[in-house]
Amino acid sequence: MPISSPLTLVVNCGSSSLKFALYDPREPEALLGGLAECLDSPDARIRFDADGERTVTPLAGGGHREALDALLAFLAARGLLERVAAVGHRVVHGGERFTQSAEVSAEVLADIEACAELAPLHNPANLIGIRAAMAALPAARQVAVFDTAFHQTMAPEAYLYALPQQYRRDYGVRRYGFHGTSHRCVSQRAIERLELDPTDNALVVLHLGNGASATAVRNGRSVDTSMGLTPVEGLVMGTRCGDVDAGALLYIARRAGLDLDAVDTMINKKSGLLGLSELSNDCRTLEQAAAAGHEGAQLALDVFCYRIARTVGALAASLPRLDALVFTGGIGENSAHVRAKVLERLAIFGLDLDPERNDVTRGGACAVISRSHRPAAIVVPTDEEGTIARDTAAIAFGLSASAAEVA
Amino acid sequence: MPISSPLTLVVNCGSSSLKFALYDPREPEALLGGLAECLDSPDARIRFDADGERTVTPLAGGGHREALDALLAFLAARGLLERVAAVGHRVVHGGERFTQSAEVSAEVLADIEACAELAPLHNPANLIGIRAAMAALPAARQVAVFDTAFHQTMAPEAYLYALPQQYRRDYGVRRYGFHGTSHRCVSQRAIERLELDPTDNALVVLHLGNGASATAVRNGRSVDTSMGLTPVEGLVMGTRCGDVDAGALLYIARRAGLDLDAVDTMINKKSGLLGLSELSNDCRTLEQAAAAGHEGAQLALDVFCYRIARTVGALAASLPRLDALVFTGGIGENSAHVRAKVLERLAIFGLDLDPERNDVTRGGACAVISRSHRPAAIVVPTDEEGTIARDTAAIAFGLSASAAEVA
Ligand SMILES: Nc1ncnc2c1ncn2[C@@H]1O[C@H](COP(=O)(O)OP(=O)(O)O)[C@@H](O)[C@H]1O
Ligand SMILES: Nc1ncnc2c1ncn2[C@@H]1O[C@H](COP(=O)(O)OP(=O)(O)O)[C@@H](O)[C@H]1O
Repeated sequence: MPISSPLTLVVNCGSSSLKFALYDPREPEALLGGLAECLDSPDARIRFDADGERTVTPLAGGGHREALDALLAFLAARGLLERVAAVGHRVVHGGERFTQSAEVSAEVLADIEACAELAPLHNPANLIGIRAAMAALPAARQVAVFDTAFHQTMAPEAYLYALPQQYRRDYGVRRYGFHGTSHRCVSQRAIERLELDPTDNALVVLHLGNGASATAVRNGRSVDTSMGLTPVEGLVMGTRCGDVDAGALLYIARRAGLDLDAVDTMINKKSGLLGLSELSNDCRTLEQAAAAGHEGAQLALDVFCYRIARTVGALAASLPRLDALVFTGGIGENSAHVRAKVLERLAIFGLDLDPERNDVTRGGACAVISRSHRPAAIVVPTDEEGTIARDTAAIAFGLSASAAEVA
Repeated sequence: MPISSPLTLVVNCGSSSLKFALYDPREPEALLGGLAECLDSPDARIRFDADGERTVTPLAGGGHREALDALLAFLAARGLLERVAAVGHRVVHGGERFTQSAEVSAEVLADIEACAELAPLHNPANLIGIRAAMAALPAARQVAVFDTAFHQTMAPEAYLYALPQQYRRDYGVRRYGFHGTSHRCVSQRAIERLELDPTDNALVVLHLGNGASATAVRNGRSVDTSMGLTPVEGLVMGTRCGDVDAGALLYIARRAGLDLDAVDTMINKKSGLLGLSELSNDCRTLEQAAAAGHEGAQLALDVFCYRIARTVGALAASLPRLDALVFTGGIGENSAHVRAKVLERLAIFGLDLDPERNDVTRGGACAVISRSHRPAAIVVPTDEEGTIARDTAAIAFGLSASAAEVA
């Protein structure tokens, strides 16, 4: 295998961050990775994790463009830049247009732009990353991988809201769902690990991080999911409220005199674990505080776990049976407490807990944590960057990979 | 038994209607009943159903007060008025103050008034009825029966929203639930009819009418329910949206330029079956239209049934097992189509359908419609007026009745 084999760069632009990783398509692990954060602020900086070393460089005032320049310079200095033959971009909202990953063309760019109305904070940042990468690496092929694509297999009764249908026709209002790359990656891994029949299986996947969502997966296809038109719906999250009575929002807006922007800030930034605990949006912090007797922290964790169980039940109604409940994301992979509380509430589905296995499972380990076999409860680390890299390689280099699975 | 035995009048004041029924506490069926509607409009009228005859009298421009006067005159003319010793009033919102039915006192009136902020359309109408009845029948005892009271047994993790907790402290924002009198009545009847252990049973009750809600009932107590602070949350209803992404409402409000009142009208009056079908809010009308090939009607029914199944799953996660799924309300008691579609989706809980029994069950019949025994699917007619009458008699006359059950 020649040393100059082509590499895949993965770029994930958030509203004020840029995450990246470099892959050799022949290897499952990234060669290097890192994160630029606090972009467009005086604290802007970029961190590289390579060869077991971490280096941080300030980018004072720099934006996505400057971050990408710093990344390319870093790669060039190591002789890696010229080997980057494909760039995979995470794109948050693909609307109804994108049902799988797509090579970037003028038409695809226009379509991503059209979807920006649905994700005004995210898609524009994603587009900045794509355009900057096209300018800097004109010879490389660019691939877009969408958070929503995996959920395009939902049936109308699962994705329609009972709102006036003119808003669906005119503005595209419907359930789309997010975290699709993670749900796809993790459901595939769970099916392999549990040796389920690939043509007849039924899972619920819990992606529990700062953002959190749950998906019912039937034979590798999403049939229902907890997030909606926006990532506010569904589970309790770090600072997002998840499911809430629409009438309650009107009631609060009227009594507290909030306008639309203030309601937006409330449901996106001041709610969730933070709003309930009045302490923190961070699960680990709350677990420590609850153990030390903080009532708000305990309540926040209780509501968080209760609502996860409630949502698993809601999604399970789309499945003929439950083969496995799959935990992933920062909380799902690391919090034995949350997993135990959730499983405790799901005995109705035949789920139970193996406390020993649960307690020792964290930090990227894959493990069954139930005594029950069908359904099983299993922890599966997610790998969104790796999945994007595989989709990208499949499309750019024609390598067989997971992109084919979603077709 | 003396002919002059005391009678109980049940009064249910809606925003522009007044429903009533007269009971002899020794008999399960009402002696007479009726409805005043279109109050405070030129079309105002009152209908009496008594002795197998229906009479309608215009009340042009009349309000609740005039309707009550007409009712009392009707009773006086039949020598029944002097026998009315107690009046039971339906009150929609009892907040956290009322955990069961209560005899009306100055303090209780003030508390109902305090809860009016939570139900600005309903509680004031209920108060008009109570005050008018107190003035007209000063010797009768007045009892308030609350839609929310049955759900006060929910645990904090089930009733808290993941919103900033200051709104709970300052404005009472939490899940309350509604239709409590119906859920209580129907769950009790189902337990008796299915001969379930009164100290160890687990039901989900579906009250499906123009308003619709579902409740998980464990040993006679509500443990979770689909309606929230307001009756907008949960299932798809005639014109209410039920569960919806909060972010989607903001998105629509911004794009369509709606203010809070317009959003309120949208989610309460233009959504639900009406918004989805763009035809009607009426289930029977939609079934006929769908059978004749109307796509919107079919879609509305599909979403309605899907969301019922999804909600049953969500609520079942609060139960250790499912003994029975109970259908009630105008749709639950009459629509074999809706019941069949809902049960079709709930095989994961071991539920199935007995098509012959299902097809012939309507119009107030009580019947098991599943082949499966545990869980069973059962249709149970609701009797909200009768339940209010029994609570009222129990409190006013010291007769043992269902009021004791909720203590
Ligand atoms: N050991 C742990 N115990 C409990 N929670 C943890 C632990 N490690 C990480 N977490 C939680 O995981 C969450 C972050 O998850 P992550 O998937 O990294 O988030 P993001 O959605 O931003 O990618 C935080 O709430 C953090 O507290
Ligand atoms: N035979 C029937 N088939 C289908 N739906 C029916 C039938 N009879 C009544 N309904 C429906 O029941 C609903 C009214 O239910 P009801 O409990 O009376 O309402 P409310 O909540 O106003 O008390 C309407 O949607 C109506 O179409």
